[in-house]
Amino acid sequence: MDAESPISAEKYAADISSIREAHVRIKPFIHKTPVLTSESLNTLSGRELFFKCECFQKGGAFKFRGACNAIFSLDNDQAAKGVVTHSSGNHAAALALAAKLRGIPAHIVIPNNAPKCKVENVIRYGGQVIWSDVTIQSREDTAAKVMQETGAVLVHPFNDGRIISGQGTISLEFLEQVPQLDTVIVPISGGGLISGVTLAAKSINPLLRVLAAEPKGANDAAQSKAAGRIVKLRETNTVADGLRAFLGDLTWPVVRDLVEDVIVVDDEEIIDAMKLIYEILKVAVEPSGAIGLAAVLSDRFKKNPAWKDCNNIGIIISGGNLDLEVLWDSFRR
Amino acid sequence: MDAESPISAEKYAADISSIREAHVRIKPFIHKTPVLTSESLNTLSGRELFFKCECFQKGGAFKFRGACNAIFSLDNDQAAKGVVTHSSGNHAAALALAAKLRGIPAHIVIPNNAPKCKVENVIRYGGQVIWSDVTIQSREDTAAKVMQETGAVLVHPFNDGRIISGQGTISLEFLEQVPQLDTVIVPISGGGLISGVTLAAKSINPLLRVLAAEPKGANDAAQSKAAGRIVKLRETNTVADGLRAFLGDLTWPVVRDLVEDVIVVDDEEIIDAMKLIYEILKVAVEPSGAIGLAAVLSDRFKKNPAWKDCNNIGIIISGGNLDLEVLWDSFRR
Repeated sequence: MDAESPISAEKYAADISSIREAHVRIKPFIHKTPVLTSESLNTLSGRELFFKCECFQKGGAFKFRGACNAIFSLDNDQAAKGVVTHSSGNHAAALALAAKLRGIPAHIVIPNNAPKCKVENVIRYGGQVIWSDVTIQSREDTAAKVMQETGAVLVHPFNDGRIISGQGTISLEFLEQVPQLDTVIVPISGGGLISGVTLAAKSINPLLRVLAAEPKGANDAAQSKAAGRIVKLRETNTVADGLRAFLGDLTWPVVRDLVEDVIVVDDEEIIDAMKLIYEILKVAVEPSGAIGLAAVLSDRFKKNPAWKDCNNIGIIISGGNLDLEVLWDSFRR
Repeated sequence: MDAESPISAEKYAADISSIREAHVRIKPFIHKTPVLTSESLNTLSGRELFFKCECFQKGGAFKFRGACNAIFSLDNDQAAKGVVTHSSGNHAAALALAAKLRGIPAHIVIPNNAPKCKVENVIRYGGQVIWSDVTIQSREDTAAKVMQETGAVLVHPFNDGRIISGQGTISLEFLEQVPQLDTVIVPISGGGLISGVTLAAKSINPLLRVLAAEPKGANDAAQSKAAGRIVKLRETNTVADGLRAFLGDLTWPVVRDLVEDVIVVDDEEIIDAMKLIYEILKVAVEPSGAIGLAAVLSDRFKKNPAWKDCNNIGIIISGGNLDLEVLWDSFRR
């Protein structure tokens, strides 16, 4: 449906063309991540599940796709001044790594409660860390100050067409690897991942369903869908440290128009899913990355007659950056 | 070199033909496991590393390949009486799973110090557990008793041509996935894995080098190579619970003639490698599965001039069955 698609770059921040362009741009740098399956997990869920393992992406998360597309989209003058971002960790590390590949500086504003391993990744990839308070306000103010001082280009973690296009390349690979997919379940936070994945997937197969999975303690997307407008929460409380952001003005239209529904799960379900992914799939996953499996195993999904025909379900394991201590503490609860 | 190969079924318990036949037989049942790479680990080792992730195989280890080949090689009369084996766990679970697929009974003799998760796998796959003492003698006596009572066929964990042929299918996939491999490093225990992998790999590419990796506390293969005959140890002491067996009369000739050398590593190096595989590759690995990386990162390998031309190194991550508690305890040491 490329020719007369209602999914156009006029309406949304990306489309199948910008996503295909992103794929050409980033292909030399990214891993084409494998898809794993497990009969044990199929039996448990009553569906055929296909796990797209973005935890094996460079930097340990899907974020490298968008970051790489943003960095290699800059013209030489822009690039010379470097980039800046604020992030809980995975986007930060991804941007630092992509900047290193292009040989330009990356200034990374990190809230002081970010997981240790994510901060270590930023440092390993040569990013320059600037600490901020936990609030979005403090992060944004600190980033603005860096921009002023250095002339660096801001690369927002999700509310950016280049980022959305980069994340969308997952769908190009996934639908080639598993053409029979009829449903994709995607973690939702700021919405960059789900926007890109949805715009690409529904352009290739308009009948494919996209569902979001969101933690109960940061359920702004579910509330936004219900209200028909962006709802921001006063605070968030979830073990899924990568899913605490709120939708932006570029990601909300995609979620509003093209994402069928938001499945909300609680932290206990997320931890149970992490454990299954570790024990059965043998994959190290962070809480945010386990939420798709948590959703598909929840009664809200299993018993919903609207989704009884979702037979071949793609689940995006978004990342695997986790302090082992945290994993172990979660399991002992 | 298929036509006039010195690697023939007269000389060894398997050859490229029996391995190709095994592949046809088991292909409908096994996972074609992915190969992962990491620039961080390449930098650390100074080589290009390719990780064949048999931890993602059904049952969580390469053992399913051999077990599946053995089970589906049985004629109907043999199959009806079921199979029996003794194993520390991965072969046991694999045999139970393969037997379940053919719908025949599997009697599994397990030493009472086997890891919990491996025993759980046997039970999950419907295997009938018979406990024995830890010694090889006790295991063999118990298995013999079961054979007498049931008429079940013994499927030895490694000293069996059907098992060796099944494990050899790894090389068929690996050399197709990474044709530039010049070296493969393989964990060694009873020698079933390395025999199959070597016979296939060196038939396809006679110049390819195969090196074994063995724990210091169970270094019978290194001692056997040095002595020119099978050496058995009075006792073993290593964290790698899957690498405590000794070579058999069918696996020793392959190790003697075709495996270039045995790299011995200590438990601390194995645990460090497990940690790297967890943190960087995002893969849950058991100690035995991490030994290939431990070997390639050891000074004995890095500083050996004989191996300075080993540039594209395949490492077999043999399994991922591990109690999380054990992993965590190892890391805290």
